Amino acid sequence: MTDFQPAGLDRIELLKSLTPEERVALSRQCSWRHFHAQEQIVDRSSESRDVCFIVEGRVRVVNYSLSGREITFDDIEAGGYLGELSAIDGEPRSASIVALTETQVAFMSPRLFLETATQHPAVALLVMRRLARIVRSATGRIMDLSTLGANNRVHAELLRLAKPDLRPDNTAEITPVPIHNDIASRVSTTRETVARVFSDLARDGILERRGNHLVILDFRKLENMVEGVRGD
Amino acid sequence: MTDFQPAGLDRIELLKSLTPEERVALSRQCSWRHFHAQEQIVDRSSESRDVCFIVEGRVRVVNYSLSGREITFDDIEAGGYLGELSAIDGEPRSASIVALTETQVAFMSPRLFLETATQHPAVALLVMRRLARIVRSATGRIMDLSTLGANNRVHAELLRLAKPDLRPDNTAEITPVPIHNDIASRVSTTRETVARVFSDLARDGILERRGNHLVILDFRKLENMVEGVRGD
Repeated sequence: MTDFQPAGLDRIELLKSLTPEERVALSRQCSWRHFHAQEQIVDRSSESRDVCFIVEGRVRVVNYSLSGREITFDDIEAGGYLGELSAIDGEPRSASIVALTETQVAFMSPRLFLETATQHPAVALLVMRRLARIVRSATGRIMDLSTLGANNRVHAELLRLAKPDLRPDNTAEITPVPIHNDIASRVSTTRETVARVFSDLARDGILERRGNHLVILDFRKLENMVEGVRGD
Repeated sequence: MTDFQPAGLDRIELLKSLTPEERVALSRQCSWRHFHAQEQIVDRSSESRDVCFIVEGRVRVVNYSLSGREITFDDIEAGGYLGELSAIDGEPRSASIVALTETQVAFMSPRLFLETATQHPAVALLVMRRLARIVRSATGRIMDLSTLGANNRVHAELLRLAKPDLRPDNTAEITPVPIHNDIASRVSTTRETVARVFSDLARDGILERRGNHLVILDFRKLENMVEGVRGD
């Protein structure tokens, strides 16, 4: 319990509608732990159904095929939470959670999480919104896996990463340069395919690496490459 | 309003924890409509964010690629509901809804749905459970699309359909015989692939059509065919 932070849950977006006193009371009922980068926070095969509140740091939710092939899902920043699926339905973990940086986690029991999430309408709404966002993203991924080839899935992932930075001059930067293996995991292909697609795009003047940035030189053209195929 | 049924929502599983009086009050605030088989209940491109309670009949949630290729998702029976994603996040519909039989629907506004779902803890929990189930099923589908070939996805879908009927003698029946096109939509392949896989399985003594039933003669063997590949 040396990691216990009475006001630690104040940083958690889900609980912002509670009073500071309510959050302190919840904090006392959580288990607090610190993790180093690359340390496993929750193993997929573990029996725990606790919800993890990320108080400091950044974590990655990773799903594996039976053979151990990594199929990445999502990165969660400080202020977020994860692991609610098992708390809600009592079923086994669907994924493992790994620390990407030094990370402080508050573990909350399923009983306490469900009590908190259903007794406070504002919290209930946020839990539903997050689940809805996960459903939307999974549905989009199913559509892409069903209708796009591997090359175009890499294109679609680049568009997704670059979109927040899209500028009026039709360029966008991705910082830092994404790791080939991460993209490969996210779109269910191999690292080699990602490397090949990157060098094809560079040759065609659509993509350029500049130090720590990956620059999309022609966002619309890349978008059209994906849309053209999605419409096939 | 000729279709209005004061006690119609009594059949809705989500609302069973409310009092009969609370359900009648909600019923009065819904719009009630009757649909014939094959009639469109909600168009994907519609502006409506209403939640649909299926009071009588059966409906299908259908997603399409831009080109109009059908990618089926789910069938919902009387007592169920759907369309809550748009009510929760205010985003456009992710799918269309079509009546499979004569169907009675009560449409509830997003505002009233969210009020009901967040003010009643038992209702909130059921909404979260349903979303969690959708996430689990989508995640499983992403894993299958990422790791299995089309043939094995047809096998996996047959296992899913047959599992509820699995008997001690290692056989199982699917009734009625599934339509090739429906399976093709669900696992993102073509009708021709489904037909070919069925005839391969029949030749190998794993599958047999008997009138209105499709009989899995060796469930374990079919299971091993999928597990063997999932583990690759």
